[in-house]
Amino acid sequence: MRWMAVLVVVDGMGDRPLAELDGATPLERAETPNMDSMAEEGVTGIVDVVSPGVPPGSDTAHLALFGFDPYGDYTGRGAFEALGAGLDVGKGDVAFRGNFATVDDGVVVDRRAGRVFERAWELADELDGTSPPGFPDVEVSVKHSTQHRCAVVLRGPRLSRAVTDVDPHEEGREIREARAADGTDEAERTAAAVNSLVSTWREILVDSPVNDERADRGRPPVNTLLLRGAGVLPELPTVDERFGVGGKFVSPVALYGGLALAAGMDPVPLDEEVREMDDLSQVEAIGGAALGAVDAGFLFVHFKGADNASHDGLVGRKVEVIEAVDSVVGELREESRAHLAVTADHSSPCSVGGHSGDPVPIVIDGPGTRPDDVDRFGERACAGGGLHRLRGRDVLYELMDLEGRVSLHGG
Amino acid sequence: MRWMAVLVVVDGMGDRPLAELDGATPLERAETPNMDSMAEEGVTGIVDVVSPGVPPGSDTAHLALFGFDPYGDYTGRGAFEALGAGLDVGKGDVAFRGNFATVDDGVVVDRRAGRVFERAWELADELDGTSPPGFPDVEVSVKHSTQHRCAVVLRGPRLSRAVTDVDPHEEGREIREARAADGTDEAERTAAAVNSLVSTWREILVDSPVNDERADRGRPPVNTLLLRGAGVLPELPTVDERFGVGGKFVSPVALYGGLALAAGMDPVPLDEEVREMDDLSQVEAIGGAALGAVDAGFLFVHFKGADNASHDGLVGRKVEVIEAVDSVVGELREESRAHLAVTADHSSPCSVGGHSGDPVPIVIDGPGTRPDDVDRFGERACAGGGLHRLRGRDVLYELMDLEGRVSLHGG
Repeated sequence: MRWMAVLVVVDGMGDRPLAELDGATPLERAETPNMDSMAEEGVTGIVDVVSPGVPPGSDTAHLALFGFDPYGDYTGRGAFEALGAGLDVGKGDVAFRGNFATVDDGVVVDRRAGRVFERAWELADELDGTSPPGFPDVEVSVKHSTQHRCAVVLRGPRLSRAVTDVDPHEEGREIREARAADGTDEAERTAAAVNSLVSTWREILVDSPVNDERADRGRPPVNTLLLRGAGVLPELPTVDERFGVGGKFVSPVALYGGLALAAGMDPVPLDEEVREMDDLSQVEAIGGAALGAVDAGFLFVHFKGADNASHDGLVGRKVEVIEAVDSVVGELREESRAHLAVTADHSSPCSVGGHSGDPVPIVIDGPGTRPDDVDRFGERACAGGGLHRLRGRDVLYELMDLEGRVSLHGG
Repeated sequence: MRWMAVLVVVDGMGDRPLAELDGATPLERAETPNMDSMAEEGVTGIVDVVSPGVPPGSDTAHLALFGFDPYGDYTGRGAFEALGAGLDVGKGDVAFRGNFATVDDGVVVDRRAGRVFERAWELADELDGTSPPGFPDVEVSVKHSTQHRCAVVLRGPRLSRAVTDVDPHEEGREIREARAADGTDEAERTAAAVNSLVSTWREILVDSPVNDERADRGRPPVNTLLLRGAGVLPELPTVDERFGVGGKFVSPVALYGGLALAAGMDPVPLDEEVREMDDLSQVEAIGGAALGAVDAGFLFVHFKGADNASHDGLVGRKVEVIEAVDSVVGELREESRAHLAVTADHSSPCSVGGHSGDPVPIVIDGPGTRPDDVDRFGERACAGGGLHRLRGRDVLYELMDLEGRVSLHGG
């Protein structure tokens, strides 16, 4: 076994004290012998992934944790989604997230068209390759990702990511026209192309045999693909270019995979069904894949379940997911010789049901760390740790410096 | 005695826990009654001199500790070296570090030409004042600094610091041609001037009587001056302009002297032989000079020895140097009425043998500080201190503010 660096991100793990846990957070309540042992032997702290008090998006959080500037290096979410879904995203391409949805008389009545999908990939295939009428030089790719979700890429000259969403983000509202978000001709042209595309897609979807079958089953028709999150791919150096070592990632979620690909990491293969597993089984499957990749120089492992539980306010479930992650962390410590960091991409307090701007705990162990007095992994314990309060973009540098892989700044 | 501010920088003092010291760092192991007393009476913390996890260069570290931006204000190392070696560096001048070296058939076989030099200043004099053939408007100054080291300044119209090193940085490799590091005409012209100069120098060196004598003694010939670290002088305000008080510095090393000069401090005279002293004697000599300068408003004192010991992995020696510095700190406290800060420019773990990105400890004492519970000066003890985790560029402001010398920002 060689030495390696491992970054474990537990999505939405950070939380706030909960009355129903007698003032503990889910992480503080969880039995986490392995992460506690890391805290005892290593060094701890808290992290403002984006900026104090600012709730990170899932994309900006990971950009930061990969060592980039979550403001300056951020160029929209769509391109990461598309890359993660397996679409090719080139320089100048503009990518979007899409939802199959139900529109009635111009009003979005169901943003997820009932959430139940058997043949979504067929619908995506029907839309794939359509050029928007009036824009023969714009090529369009559409790919289904999970459930009602798609990724869309527009390729052609003079396109811009400065276009507003077609998705009104709330049911009962009118579907929107894409508009130029800045005064450039490119943005005007891209907005017009998107609007042309959305109209054409509607005609295709209405005639789709998939909708006939849905009608037979009493499901709402899929008659639009709501676009949002226009983005282009930022030009980021690879892990190898920055640290002189290859990077791999394990994530069943397209977005995180896309972010890791954009940051120059290679995917560890995962079975397709891992995407749709329940949260606890998924933790185990991800752990298995991670354990098979301890030959990488750098490994990023993303666990999604704790965030799902937070969004649904399921405190007990969040505790269980964290405990399952802790077991995987224990195995990773046993099976690798690693500088290992465990943290979260953001807090997702169960009382909030979404991302918050609270800092997240971090622990790093392995040779060369300067152990502090903290012997428990939790939001408040780690606030007393030797790392103090870091920014998200510092995390990878802290970890890689322990491996001797960060270049001197200056001479 | 007036009140004054003193910044003591112990080069490379920060370290990591070492098994051979039962898990202590050299600083933690050293007997440092004076710095411990400062910790007890003053306030402590840790400092990311450049940025968390990023190993500072010697130059960027001092820029930051002098209150500047180690990224935005950094314009290459050469100009600081040249200034510190006693060369005049004006606006538009491009300066380099140079090594007398031995090249055989285009390959650098010894980057230090055997390290043994009696008449290096004569060689430098022979090269001084040569104009590069083809560039009659470029004036060249060469000055010997220590051992095999020189500083070189190019003066003339349309020069740029965007040129790559002639020095291959490793023995057994071919000497390089300087190349333009950006697409400008100025960079192309400077690279061509450098290459012309290096060829001419080679002819001069080959014919030098110094080499005849070296041959007689069986020493490798000095047949090139390898250039690296092109830099121009940044325009920095003086200590007086920023804080309304004169600044002085004590350092036997050209680089740190050059940085202090660039930041508008005046040198405290040091005997020439202090440069070549062994590390412990040098600490004492520097201490003596510093004690003679306690009439300055601001005094910067640099001790080099701990870093030398770290690079050579000499743990016991590092402990001794730190203990010697501690004695000087004790005398400085006795002989001055000072707000005194002691810190390092970077960590140099003995286990790494070079700079690392670990934070360094800091202690500041004197009236007005807010004492914390820390009563021991060390990497981990200071991590629990009242200053928390600072950036390098904050240090001088913290210190000067205790003297009431930092201007209000805003109104």
